[in-house]
Amino acid sequence: MTSMVPQDPTKAPGAPTTAVGARSEFAKGARAPTGAIAGSSFTPLQNLTGTITPSDLHFEVNHGGVPAIDPARHSLLVHGLVQRPMLFTLADIKRFPQVVRVCAIECAGNGSLAWGGGPFGKPDPGLTPQQVAGMTGNTEWTGVSLPVLLAEARVSARAKWVLAEGGDSCLFARSIPVEKLMDDAILAWAQNGEPLRPSQGYPLRLVLPGWEGSTNVKWLRRLEIGAQPWMTRWETATYTDPLINGTARQFSFVMDAKSIITTPAHPETITPGWRQISGLAWSGRGKIVRVEVSTDGGARWREAALEGAALSKAHVRFTQMWNWDGSETILLSRATDETGYVQPTRADLIRARGIGTLYHYNPIYAWRVMPNGRVFFRGDT
Amino acid sequence: MTSMVPQDPTKAPGAPTTAVGARSEFAKGARAPTGAIAGSSFTPLQNLTGTITPSDLHFEVNHGGVPAIDPARHSLLVHGLVQRPMLFTLADIKRFPQVVRVCAIECAGNGSLAWGGGPFGKPDPGLTPQQVAGMTGNTEWTGVSLPVLLAEARVSARAKWVLAEGGDSCLFARSIPVEKLMDDAILAWAQNGEPLRPSQGYPLRLVLPGWEGSTNVKWLRRLEIGAQPWMTRWETATYTDPLINGTARQFSFVMDAKSIITTPAHPETITPGWRQISGLAWSGRGKIVRVEVSTDGGARWREAALEGAALSKAHVRFTQMWNWDGSETILLSRATDETGYVQPTRADLIRARGIGTLYHYNPIYAWRVMPNGRVFFRGDT
Repeated sequence: MTSMVPQDPTKAPGAPTTAVGARSEFAKGARAPTGAIAGSSFTPLQNLTGTITPSDLHFEVNHGGVPAIDPARHSLLVHGLVQRPMLFTLADIKRFPQVVRVCAIECAGNGSLAWGGGPFGKPDPGLTPQQVAGMTGNTEWTGVSLPVLLAEARVSARAKWVLAEGGDSCLFARSIPVEKLMDDAILAWAQNGEPLRPSQGYPLRLVLPGWEGSTNVKWLRRLEIGAQPWMTRWETATYTDPLINGTARQFSFVMDAKSIITTPAHPETITPGWRQISGLAWSGRGKIVRVEVSTDGGARWREAALEGAALSKAHVRFTQMWNWDGSETILLSRATDETGYVQPTRADLIRARGIGTLYHYNPIYAWRVMPNGRVFFRGDT
Repeated sequence: MTSMVPQDPTKAPGAPTTAVGARSEFAKGARAPTGAIAGSSFTPLQNLTGTITPSDLHFEVNHGGVPAIDPARHSLLVHGLVQRPMLFTLADIKRFPQVVRVCAIECAGNGSLAWGGGPFGKPDPGLTPQQVAGMTGNTEWTGVSLPVLLAEARVSARAKWVLAEGGDSCLFARSIPVEKLMDDAILAWAQNGEPLRPSQGYPLRLVLPGWEGSTNVKWLRRLEIGAQPWMTRWETATYTDPLINGTARQFSFVMDAKSIITTPAHPETITPGWRQISGLAWSGRGKIVRVEVSTDGGARWREAALEGAALSKAHVRFTQMWNWDGSETILLSRATDETGYVQPTRADLIRARGIGTLYHYNPIYAWRVMPNGRVFFRGDT
């Protein structure tokens, strides 16, 4: 591992310049892939800082694997309740005015591993931020504003829903209200300055700021305009939220405000003295206006600093200095967004939606610091 | 090349999830390395969009190669005119309050290839944006604010200059006024959310927003506080600007406002009709407040749109729609920053500093569009 590292790097010739700058062999952190065709890989939140997620570490969830697409043979069909059906090539799409926006995409199922290890189990204290909340990423997207593109097709006044279909092997598809597409939707072809990576939807992806990840359809090839939702298998068998009374929430698109401390967190071991508590907060409803941190299990809360301008529907980094005295304690964070929504406790979430809910987990997360400095996940706030 | 791409990607199983998301084989653009120990590699501006530069495509200039450094054995010495000399390990540094900031780093020599192909030559019409202005990158940095760190060492009131020394094989070093370090300097250990890459200074880099790239010393290992500049070989033999009268500018740290159209640009071939003109603008003095674009060789100028909030000392993306009629023309862009500084013409720059100047090139750049749609660089605005 360290064989290439000289005892004194100033006494050895350095490496030549390269076309692509590789990571240091000492830099830790990668996604945790399931390896399956229908699988997911989580962003290593505990190894990252700032707010931007590197594109190659941005989480992915795939229902039919990652397709290999030749952009010269890819197109986007817009049809249905329109006066003028359109077929756009990538070259066509790039002629339109483009917008640039930083926003987060979070999977609706983010937090499922921390919810209890099964409906009635206890969360595993060995969970890391990556496992607790790593199905979120925050990047800069470039693409065409959907209202501008849809204007070409002349959408009917009867239009209410749009089917967004991907070009992967399962033709993954979600029904989306026209209002969202006409609000802030982006037809993106670049992420963090470069073309989308295949696992992020190359060559075209729908970006719906603040809405659950699966509606941000990757490898987008078709938008069908209609009057009602399509009830695809992904909005009937999955991506609905079972409730206590035996019914289920459907089309629960918006991701609620959430925060998580990413350091200190498992598997870190810390030492007494001053250090920074740091984490991420975001809301699908707009800007984060406040993150509070407690270092005593919730007895007292103190407002954390937010780094830089908190962007709407994007990750913001919060920080707070802490002088650890070496005694056992519990660290918590709690986000509030500009609508006044406050990240709930786990008990509040269970009261509202039961323990068997399958998506939209945003309870306050707790980290338990032991006298020996080890830090463990503790989900039962 | 296309052997892995099925005729219909929806009819073939997709690839499994991965630890790191690779680029598409169809995504073009990489840095252009010289391959030498003392060399450089330029950011492929024409293949990028938005404002964030992927860390592995951020330009590099190295004077002694890229050192391989074990972070456990790396430290930062702060000494000289201080009451309390300090030696910080990386773990020490990460205990301090951290800041997150997006800013550009531009090499003082950015633009040299476009200046004339030698002191009196003509610029090559085959230059790309990468070759004309690719020694700039814009990323999100995380680190410790220098004033906070220096407070620990108790800097003497007599301090005026600081020597910043890197841990590479040439011990690259620059003298920096204390005022800049006490203003907005960052001791960075992360870029775009992840640990610095070795070619960007892993594990520690000085970031001086708006100042010439070489002062953003990589692999930082020593800050010596003193009363006058050290006159290192890099501020005597290089990084000074010869002037017409035989003297030279020295310590010309601040990078002036610049802009460049990145599309359309060489080697693109365009077709008539509506399309977007898009490019980057930045200033070492603060925010860009205006970018004007001319599509007729400078007869008329029209204000371009700026995407998102223009951050201080950072790249901003400008865009303007253009309906090309198929006739030959010249495209130009001109940036103005918040101090009122306007990007000069090449003629103005030559009047001020002569043709033999070696750094700080920021003339208005021109792209010539031919009737056949081919686009060529034309430096003589």
